[in-house]
Amino acid sequence: MTKQELIQQINEKKSFLCVGLDTDIKKIPAHLLDTEDPIFEFNRQIIDATAPYCIAYKPNLAFYECGGLKGWIAFEKTISYLKKNYPNHMIIADAKRGDIGNTSKMYARAFFEEMNVDALTIAPYMGEDSVTPFLGYEGKWVILLALTSNKGSQDFQLTCDNGTRLFEKVIKKSQEWANDENMMYVVGATQGQMFEDIRKIAPNHFLLVPGVGAQGGSLEEVCKYGMIPHDCGLIVNSSRAIIYADSTERFAEVAGEKAKEVQQQMAELLK
Amino acid sequence: MTKQELIQQINEKKSFLCVGLDTDIKKIPAHLLDTEDPIFEFNRQIIDATAPYCIAYKPNLAFYECGGLKGWIAFEKTISYLKKNYPNHMIIADAKRGDIGNTSKMYARAFFEEMNVDALTIAPYMGEDSVTPFLGYEGKWVILLALTSNKGSQDFQLTCDNGTRLFEKVIKKSQEWANDENMMYVVGATQGQMFEDIRKIAPNHFLLVPGVGAQGGSLEEVCKYGMIPHDCGLIVNSSRAIIYADSTERFAEVAGEKAKEVQQQMAELLK
Repeated sequence: MTKQELIQQINEKKSFLCVGLDTDIKKIPAHLLDTEDPIFEFNRQIIDATAPYCIAYKPNLAFYECGGLKGWIAFEKTISYLKKNYPNHMIIADAKRGDIGNTSKMYARAFFEEMNVDALTIAPYMGEDSVTPFLGYEGKWVILLALTSNKGSQDFQLTCDNGTRLFEKVIKKSQEWANDENMMYVVGATQGQMFEDIRKIAPNHFLLVPGVGAQGGSLEEVCKYGMIPHDCGLIVNSSRAIIYADSTERFAEVAGEKAKEVQQQMAELLK
Repeated sequence: MTKQELIQQINEKKSFLCVGLDTDIKKIPAHLLDTEDPIFEFNRQIIDATAPYCIAYKPNLAFYECGGLKGWIAFEKTISYLKKNYPNHMIIADAKRGDIGNTSKMYARAFFEEMNVDALTIAPYMGEDSVTPFLGYEGKWVILLALTSNKGSQDFQLTCDNGTRLFEKVIKKSQEWANDENMMYVVGATQGQMFEDIRKIAPNHFLLVPGVGAQGGSLEEVCKYGMIPHDCGLIVNSSRAIIYADSTERFAEVAGEKAKEVQQQMAELLK
């Protein structure tokens, strides 16, 4: 998916919502446990109910790997289902991969050829040659961790070298390898005003913003400091607050309602 | 595997070699491609040939994920084969995972419960709550990236805050959460004399050392600056230089010979 196509989707849907498919077998409604593939069945119903209100889905690989082989099958079925039925939705594999060049090449093959998702989250710690093998796939995106939503983001990401904090160094340095048509950055919604600092050094890049909902970030604040006029420049993810909003047989319907609520807020904020 | 058990294995085998199972379908001998599961068949023969000379195996997840479902099956079969036939060898899943607490918990479940490996490599960028969910499993190890073997290690890992470089900060800070019985650090063999600096702040921790062999690091130098008297304190990994030493029907035999050569060097260095 190109940047232009992404912006078009946002404008058509009046939404920049990404629904996180962090599907935990221990949290899905009990009545699904009797189906052949409960994880996929949950995802399928969540997707059908929320698709009109979002522009992207973000399955987090941890939730599938922990199911072993079954989890992997559920993941692949989810990707296929999305590609077949919702080809205009961006698929973001939230995997936070990154290794030496030789190995990153294999991860790139895994996610951009074998699974053929649109975007992949990458951890920057290992530097340039751990990231560049993911670039150069047409219409594919690297989403590099910059300033994350969790408490631990304070531990290393603010390490300050001559006035430049590590997350700023990551953003600046990575622009030597990539541009705003093949790279985005992860910035947690919980970081509030820090979006202002980030827009100074990445004025045109899309930001993937987790941390609204269960983690407590504010959508209004993210938009106030992080939104780009016309292009939006934000993909805001919500996982638990949408997919686990209800645990009865009405779970999908309620997830749809929650997604619609967020979409309506977003439509206002896009004006 | 406890630290004491690890040291015992090293002393008995006179080896601190880890064989990296970076098994690439495009690089394995042609005659294996007709077998039912070429990746597993390659691994099985490599393991049987090298087991007397090494104390650990390190499959890198990237090489399995890129095969999709088949890759995952080959990975699980490899783990089962090791557990059944070589229960005293440490299994290190080289996955470089790390995410917000809630998600890291799922990765911990995946690797330490579902797959039941002994150790897992973790990326530190997201800080404390991304690492601590992996701790507290008895006999299991977190192997945290500190100073990696690749060129990109220069990009962010040396970021200097008040005289402390990022990799040093990672080592110091993480000792607030973990100790030398449940955490090791990744330090690339290509970093030579830097091992001296690392031993100042992690005198008792085991270090996992990739980068000997294809990446050009020196085993002698690693031992000179990084080895701990009596406890060794090093697990040195070699992947490509051993497993791809030969591409004919003799590949496993040659891999065994290469592993034996390294083991003999190690026996000398352990004296």
